[in-house]
Amino acid sequence: GDQDLLLAAAYVSDAQYNRNVPFETSPQAISFHSHKSLEYWCLVGIYVFVCKGLQPGLCPNPQVSASPLQATSIVEVLCLTAFFGRLLHFAKVTPQMVFWKDTKNICIMVTIVLTLVDLILYGSLETVNIRSVRWSRALRPVFLINFPESRQIRRAFRSLRNTLPDILYVFLLFMFSMLVFSLMALKLFGDRGLKTAEGSPYFANILEIAFELYVLVTTANSPDVMMPAYDFNWWYSLYFITYIIINTYIFMSVFLAVVYNNYRKHLKNEIRKLAYLKRHKMIEAFNILKVKVDAEFMVQEAQWRRLVHAVAPDMSRGHLELLLRISDEGQTGHVDKMNFLRLADLLNIQVVTVNIKRHPLEAWVPRVYQSSASLLVQRMVRHRIFVWVFDVIILINAIFIALDEKNPFISYAEWLFLSLYIIEILLKLYTYEPRAYFGRKQFWNWFDTLIIIAALVATVANTTIQSAKKYNSQQILDIVLILRILRLLRVIVSIQRFRVIVTTLINIGPTMLTFGGLVFVVYYAFAIVGMEVFHGKVQFFDPNFTTPDALVCGNPALKGSAFSQSRYCKNNFNDLASSFVVLMELTVVNQWHDILHGFALVTHPAAKLYFILFHIVVVILIVNIFIAFVLEAFFVAY
Amino acid sequence: GDQDLLLAAAYVSDAQYNRNVPFETSPQAISFHSHKSLEYWCLVGIYVFVCKGLQPGLCPNPQVSASPLQATSIVEVLCLTAFFGRLLHFAKVTPQMVFWKDTKNICIMVTIVLTLVDLILYGSLETVNIRSVRWSRALRPVFLINFPESRQIRRAFRSLRNTLPDILYVFLLFMFSMLVFSLMALKLFGDRGLKTAEGSPYFANILEIAFELYVLVTTANSPDVMMPAYDFNWWYSLYFITYIIINTYIFMSVFLAVVYNNYRKHLKNEIRKLAYLKRHKMIEAFNILKVKVDAEFMVQEAQWRRLVHAVAPDMSRGHLELLLRISDEGQTGHVDKMNFLRLADLLNIQVVTVNIKRHPLEAWVPRVYQSSASLLVQRMVRHRIFVWVFDVIILINAIFIALDEKNPFISYAEWLFLSLYIIEILLKLYTYEPRAYFGRKQFWNWFDTLIIIAALVATVANTTIQSAKKYNSQQILDIVLILRILRLLRVIVSIQRFRVIVTTLINIGPTMLTFGGLVFVVYYAFAIVGMEVFHGKVQFFDPNFTTPDALVCGNPALKGSAFSQSRYCKNNFNDLASSFVVLMELTVVNQWHDILHGFALVTHPAAKLYFILFHIVVVILIVNIFIAFVLEAFFVAY
Ligand code: NA
Repeated sequence: GDQDLLLAAAYVSDAQYNRNVPFETSPQAISFHSHKSLEYWCLVGIYVFVCKGLQPGLCPNPQVSASPLQATSIVEVLCLTAFFGRLLHFAKVTPQMVFWKDTKNICIMVTIVLTLVDLILYGSLETVNIRSVRWSRALRPVFLINFPESRQIRRAFRSLRNTLPDILYVFLLFMFSMLVFSLMALKLFGDRGLKTAEGSPYFANILEIAFELYVLVTTANSPDVMMPAYDFNWWYSLYFITYIIINTYIFMSVFLAVVYNNYRKHLKNEIRKLAYLKRHKMIEAFNILKVKVDAEFMVQEAQWRRLVHAVAPDMSRGHLELLLRISDEGQTGHVDKMNFLRLADLLNIQVVTVNIKRHPLEAWVPRVYQSSASLLVQRMVRHRIFVWVFDVIILINAIFIALDEKNPFISYAEWLFLSLYIIEILLKLYTYEPRAYFGRKQFWNWFDTLIIIAALVATVANTTIQSAKKYNSQQILDIVLILRILRLLRVIVSIQRFRVIVTTLINIGPTMLTFGGLVFVVYYAFAIVGMEVFHGKVQFFDPNFTTPDALVCGNPALKGSAFSQSRYCKNNFNDLASSFVVLMELTVVNQWHDILHGFALVTHPAAKLYFILFHIVVVILIVNIFIAFVLEAFFVAY
Repeated sequence: GDQDLLLAAAYVSDAQYNRNVPFETSPQAISFHSHKSLEYWCLVGIYVFVCKGLQPGLCPNPQVSASPLQATSIVEVLCLTAFFGRLLHFAKVTPQMVFWKDTKNICIMVTIVLTLVDLILYGSLETVNIRSVRWSRALRPVFLINFPESRQIRRAFRSLRNTLPDILYVFLLFMFSMLVFSLMALKLFGDRGLKTAEGSPYFANILEIAFELYVLVTTANSPDVMMPAYDFNWWYSLYFITYIIINTYIFMSVFLAVVYNNYRKHLKNEIRKLAYLKRHKMIEAFNILKVKVDAEFMVQEAQWRRLVHAVAPDMSRGHLELLLRISDEGQTGHVDKMNFLRLADLLNIQVVTVNIKRHPLEAWVPRVYQSSASLLVQRMVRHRIFVWVFDVIILINAIFIALDEKNPFISYAEWLFLSLYIIEILLKLYTYEPRAYFGRKQFWNWFDTLIIIAALVATVANTTIQSAKKYNSQQILDIVLILRILRLLRVIVSIQRFRVIVTTLINIGPTMLTFGGLVFVVYYAFAIVGMEVFHGKVQFFDPNFTTPDALVCGNPALKGSAFSQSRYCKNNFNDLASSFVVLMELTVVNQWHDILHGFALVTHPAAKLYFILFHIVVVILIVNIFIAFVLEAFFVAY
């Protein structure tokens, strides 16, 4: 009876959201499975846990970053308990065989044990005043990846892993080609006694050449790496042109091609697998609820209603009746198997109830709302000239923003623009039905209103502070400025072709967040390692300091290096936030060899391997997957 | 009779090679059409004409570049005459209506007239000692593009032009986003009084900001452009990260997506159109030759033989009989319409005659070749251990190459390796049938043999010169070195996965040449303009010179600029070859802003537009088409 219904609802719900956790079918396991509050608490735990490392960066004040050991440890132990609880919950819900076969669970268990060991070791060493390395921090991303909530990130990682075998062969061939070119360079330029622009010997040994050629593939040292040879003889430029065509253009495109090809193949497989699992779950649910009607198995209407209500308690009556009408077209009082299996998909369809509802004002004050003056206003607002007028106002506003705001006249004009925008929104709300205006898909109306309200609040706050304290609060002023400028984006909506492109970009937003997760996890792992290796080696001083120490970022090894000359001192691994910024710069690639050389100088030449590995993982793999994803999204959209 | 056959043969030939020049069907036009020698002479004319400009670079001696005006003018007039002759030929062959409708012909005519006018103007001004600008040189690529031989390049240009409308909207949106970010930067950083690493004001006016942000899209000024703001406040890095994600990553991927999408669409259309035209021509040919047999139109076998002989006079008897067998399967003595239309495709099929021929030695000296010792040698050579042994030898050779060759022992070892490779080739020729070994598709056998023979010749030449003159001829030594190292590529053949990738790369070679043509034409046009604007502004001095003049590339305006500090003096537009190298560096993008700033300093800030335009045309359009092409080629191959 009820237990059967709950079990069927669990199957349908899993099919609807593509959840693939096998669970035991005992009554108490089901109720546990559908109980979600614990999951959310664990999620919070995970994020507190991971974000903790970010704090020193978020509050750049260095005193705060040295938070007391006790507080940190207590949070960590609490988190580990939460994770362990979560694991227990799974062990209860999942059949034993399945639980122990799942590498996810083993991973988490091992990580919990290792973290505990590290915590105890570190704590006991600390009590006898020995500072050791908190190596288990590098394991933290495991929690992020292996929890069911990060299904998307795990899928992205799987896609990454599947690409590896194919890309490996291209990479080996690429390395081989690089070696052949290195050997050529050694023979052609090695004995010439050429000097680089900095006066150091040019292409003197094969390791250095191979490294310079690897950097050339990222284009970061072009054209400097060519200049000494080119200055010596015009012909030698052909060597570099050939190298760039083959390795920078062709090989890098082949990397993209291999990644893209795998991405598409993988995507197809995933979709096929998900469709299979969904169907399988719906058949299980059907088998639980089926009754025999006229030699055919069916689900009774009443049972179907209760099932849908259990799966989607918030569904409106009208919506439910609509789904029933679709599932039981003949109105036989039963839903047959074929129509039952479609339920998971039907539940996912967003029903846009077309509200041709009357404006609330029409109901409240019909005489006023329908008066000729009121109708004129409504006609005006609906006219496209209304849109154009406000586009022109926005453009004039842009010019005012670009002008100097020290001028009091311009600062008053800003109030005028703000009131114009508010009037526009009020007029629109007067004309259009408010619930339709703020509908789910009305991205631009939401955007508009939120920007204006935020700008209003921030401007008022800023003025209040300014008049009270006689100085500007920089943070709020910055926010006001950004909001003011973001309003300009509104102009895009008026041009159809722009709207199409922006809509595509907005639609790929959620998947982009998955990439954000993937990148975050990889960055986090690299940042932890970077912080262990490079922490404190490079110091940032106030840019106005010109002491010898400040000029070499507090490390004499950097004297005369490109790193200190370019003033990269703040590109360091001293806290998580700074590490993330450095990793972002490495992802953009430009000047990465200067950063690399800087950190090699303050530690050991082998530190280069860290940066090269990062380049291979992030630029060759992840960035290419990102490009493949945007390409695919636009092909589908066009 | 004969005229009909010639006309039909012309149609079939055009269908076979996808030539789409409509021609008059008068007898003399047809014979003219099939007469090809004039075409080749014109081609030579075109290349002499275009390459002339390259000479100053090819012979870096500055005296040669100032060739006498007379000689140049005579060559130009001769070339123009050749082009005009070509045009006349077309006018004769093509129906008048079609000739005057074709923009190609109008283009060439106008260019010829303009070049003549320029030549006369320049010459007459020269006689009264006024040096004017040879502006018609920028028109030269018109000849290259508009002649029928550059069909592929024209197709690539058409593909480029078709992409423009779609890309324009994305580009406008991208510019808009850049402007919004510029405005934000002006407001956020403009009044802070920040300074760059060089000490100049940071983000002071909107034009400069917009330019810096455009450069950031190409990543060329990352992370330097961020450092002052980041040093000032950690939060400001978020502004740059947002900008990079939106504009550098997403927008640049969208550009690639739009270009790729158009490329695929265009490719499909072209193929469809070509197939239609081919069919149409074959139907014309059929209609000329058809006779009525049993209420159906057919072509008689004898007529068909004569047609094929006219189209492909070199075809072997066996090949012709094979085609006939395919076209007239029932051996009825007639070819029906459906089979006739397939002829153009059949002619394109490369017939690989599988020669299970005996080795010539087996015919000449059967006793010796079949002796047990000889058979043992053959079995040895066919064994895969033979391949492995030579792979190991090549790898050992690689190590010897990497070692110092001043050592006489190593220099003798090189002779040993060379003889081993020659023995290997001789053994293979002894074992395998020579004509099969050097078959059309045996790329690697050809590669191997040519490299070894070239290395042998070059090494002998080098040794002779060395012993005769007691000094190394650098050019020959360089070639020997390169050949010696290229032999290492042989190792690739032994690994199946590598061979697949390399084969794909070799297969896309011919189309890659089309890109070479496209890039050449665009480079040429930009180089001509660059040479007119920047000629002589930057001078290259010997790198050992340290006079103040040499340090600023002979132009005081460059004092203290990144251009002169990075020693970019040889990156100038003083001759075509140097211009091409600069444009190649701009294509690679890295440090392009330094080159741009240098040339803006020695001329006018507006010169920046030249470089930005080049970036848009070459990097955003052509490089993306190239990537799209490689992607598509690899998708087809996998
Ligand atoms: Na770069």
